[in-house]
Amino acid sequence: MSYSARLKRLSCAVALTLVALQSQAQGLTPVPTTPKNIIVMVGDGMGPAYTSAYRLYMDDPDTEEIEETVFNRLLVGSASTFPARESGYVTDSAAAATALSCGIKTYNGAIGVDSQKQPVPTLLERAKQLGMGTGVAVTSQVNHATPAAFLTHNESRQNYEEIAESYLATDAEVILGGGQRYFPSSLTDKFKAKGYQVVTKMAELEQVNKPDVLGLFADINLPWVKDATSADQLAELTDKSLKLLSQSDKGFVLLVEGSMIDWAGHANDIGAAMGEMQGFANAVEVAEQFVRQHPDTLLVVTADHSTGGLTIGANSEYRWSPEVLRTMTATTATIAARAIAEDNWRAEVETGLGFKPDDKEWQQLDMARMQGQDAMTSALRKLVNVRTNTGWTTGGHTGVDVEVFAVGAGSGLFHGHQDNTDIANKLSSLLPAKAQ
Amino acid sequence: MSYSARLKRLSCAVALTLVALQSQAQGLTPVPTTPKNIIVMVGDGMGPAYTSAYRLYMDDPDTEEIEETVFNRLLVGSASTFPARESGYVTDSAAAATALSCGIKTYNGAIGVDSQKQPVPTLLERAKQLGMGTGVAVTSQVNHATPAAFLTHNESRQNYEEIAESYLATDAEVILGGGQRYFPSSLTDKFKAKGYQVVTKMAELEQVNKPDVLGLFADINLPWVKDATSADQLAELTDKSLKLLSQSDKGFVLLVEGSMIDWAGHANDIGAAMGEMQGFANAVEVAEQFVRQHPDTLLVVTADHSTGGLTIGANSEYRWSPEVLRTMTATTATIAARAIAEDNWRAEVETGLGFKPDDKEWQQLDMARMQGQDAMTSALRKLVNVRTNTGWTTGGHTGVDVEVFAVGAGSGLFHGHQDNTDIANKLSSLLPAKAQ
Repeated sequence: MSYSARLKRLSCAVALTLVALQSQAQGLTPVPTTPKNIIVMVGDGMGPAYTSAYRLYMDDPDTEEIEETVFNRLLVGSASTFPARESGYVTDSAAAATALSCGIKTYNGAIGVDSQKQPVPTLLERAKQLGMGTGVAVTSQVNHATPAAFLTHNESRQNYEEIAESYLATDAEVILGGGQRYFPSSLTDKFKAKGYQVVTKMAELEQVNKPDVLGLFADINLPWVKDATSADQLAELTDKSLKLLSQSDKGFVLLVEGSMIDWAGHANDIGAAMGEMQGFANAVEVAEQFVRQHPDTLLVVTADHSTGGLTIGANSEYRWSPEVLRTMTATTATIAARAIAEDNWRAEVETGLGFKPDDKEWQQLDMARMQGQDAMTSALRKLVNVRTNTGWTTGGHTGVDVEVFAVGAGSGLFHGHQDNTDIANKLSSLLPAKAQ
Repeated sequence: MSYSARLKRLSCAVALTLVALQSQAQGLTPVPTTPKNIIVMVGDGMGPAYTSAYRLYMDDPDTEEIEETVFNRLLVGSASTFPARESGYVTDSAAAATALSCGIKTYNGAIGVDSQKQPVPTLLERAKQLGMGTGVAVTSQVNHATPAAFLTHNESRQNYEEIAESYLATDAEVILGGGQRYFPSSLTDKFKAKGYQVVTKMAELEQVNKPDVLGLFADINLPWVKDATSADQLAELTDKSLKLLSQSDKGFVLLVEGSMIDWAGHANDIGAAMGEMQGFANAVEVAEQFVRQHPDTLLVVTADHSTGGLTIGANSEYRWSPEVLRTMTATTATIAARAIAEDNWRAEVETGLGFKPDDKEWQQLDMARMQGQDAMTSALRKLVNVRTNTGWTTGGHTGVDVEVFAVGAGSGLFHGHQDNTDIANKLSSLLPAKAQ
């Protein structure tokens, strides 16, 4: 361990003692200062503009107040996200997840390995070594960058098959999300041989009452919230994960990711982004409720980076109009697919958007439709971005600090500003003593 | 007072008691929970991307770490910034400053008045009524929106003459910044008749050893930090303000604004923005130092909104290159003015930028120079934005939550998320009892 890492570990311990002293001295119902269980939640790509926009998206315009969200309720600080020097100042999800899980800066693309491609223990590995339960619940394929960096090691996030195969050795009790294509029957058979129940439908998951479980509910990713019948997919996976992992006597560490906030950001699709934010917020509320009922649990929520350069307002106009997004019943990609397939395409567009485009917008959509589905999707996104006055600067990530939210046992450690690697080091210091 | 305002006032009092209990119970050197003095600092337009970018701008690339800044050290929470319903979700500086000073939501353009254009007591008025010293120190004209909303009332920020005239009645001990053109001798004579020393040069200010003082050091705004010989203009004004106001037996309330961060954002000028950030950071460090030496003082730093839709990285490239900005010795506007005036203009450009443009960039600058100074300024900004890979989405403001920083007596009240009006209500609750 480097001198700087030792110093950080020591600082964590001192801070923890202070928090304990405060808690005792207040004479209030004491909250345990070291958690039995840890829930880490990552909103992939969820920079500060996303949580601010989400509050406005959820605002009831008929009330005087703009209602606060779960993110406002739980905010405690911020975190810097830059990767190792060799990758510059803007991180990808792999390096950021490795920072949050392993406590080290590494190159963009790295899964649980350092700049020399050497494996570094992940948070879930440390927990497993202590006999704790571990799990991941995500909306992307389960072998995507963020869950991978909490479970395994690989020199490249692109090695999806290797990553999926490596999950066999993790002994994680709960693995829930998408990614059927990466788990052929030859691989799922091995999971079954180890005692895993393997399910592919949400209804089947309801019947699962004990670990271990591998649940793969889509070929790649779960449906977009805006396209789904419910905004509670991730909330349900979170709830089930907590129920299953609670059966572990020695506590658990669970990683939950709202994976597709980032994907919406890459596509500069504000409607899809707000839908995914709602799905993630609902999952955070499930975890928050769990902490209220189990004060020996710590919940830490953050993002790995911001995506798309989202801004609330653009083009020198002091306006953002989320009402446009509230009426949308599908993502722009889905509306475009339907509009391409149907002769009566204008009806599909109106149903999907929830409002009638004006003459100029119809002309633009008409032209785009003749160029095919991609052009139609782009035209719809542009229409929504113009109507809402949403700004974007990139199809990639940006380097703004992200927010940190926390509640429960030990949450005082996460107040104020910190580096993303500090979050991992603090979490690690909160594991039972044998881990340190 | 509305029910919701009463509730907020009550919450503040409860929180304050808790902070006091904690502080007593810790058995550590007790920090007073109610401050004698309050310093409020506003980085105009300083959204989260600005403080993140500033850390990277100040980074020493020869060290392993990316050094933390004063903003990281003092971060405690965030604040929402939206104005009153009638102005939508994106605020201007006047409505935001009125929120921070008076604790109310109002329309964009309002200075210390509510939606019915009725005056509401400002923070500095409340302090003055309690016999405290008051002052403002800014880099814009002293009668600009932010300082105005802490000192006076007007239905429009555009009424610069009325606002300047109204300062006579505020009895503020310290008024420092720019704005000579709004204070003709007929007006400054009235200030002198009331006992103010009126100075127009920084060297003269050094000789001022007691209040009251009206210091106007520029026709409109102070020089840009990137054009100035020192990054300490605002730091010096802050230091002098603290020295003068400390002479008040009953404590003081001081408002300091880094006004031109916002102006750089409006111009999408990242070099100027980072210069102004440095000037503001240096001023915050002076205030932080004062708090360390005077633990009975509260320092709260925040922004009124973010400007320009700044993003760290753009155009689908995972890169931000602040090294380009570190070598700049002037703002793009100043480089352009010199380049237009000089035959040997390329030397002026190279000196100003601190690097040699490449052939393609020279061609673009050559074309722009023929179109005049505005085109030349724009071309230089574009060059710098491309080289640094900086993103912007607007010439106006955006609606992202801003950061909140605090240290000193009562600073615990500002932890977590809050609305900008909550900041004013908390500050107001921290004034001596008679004010409540």
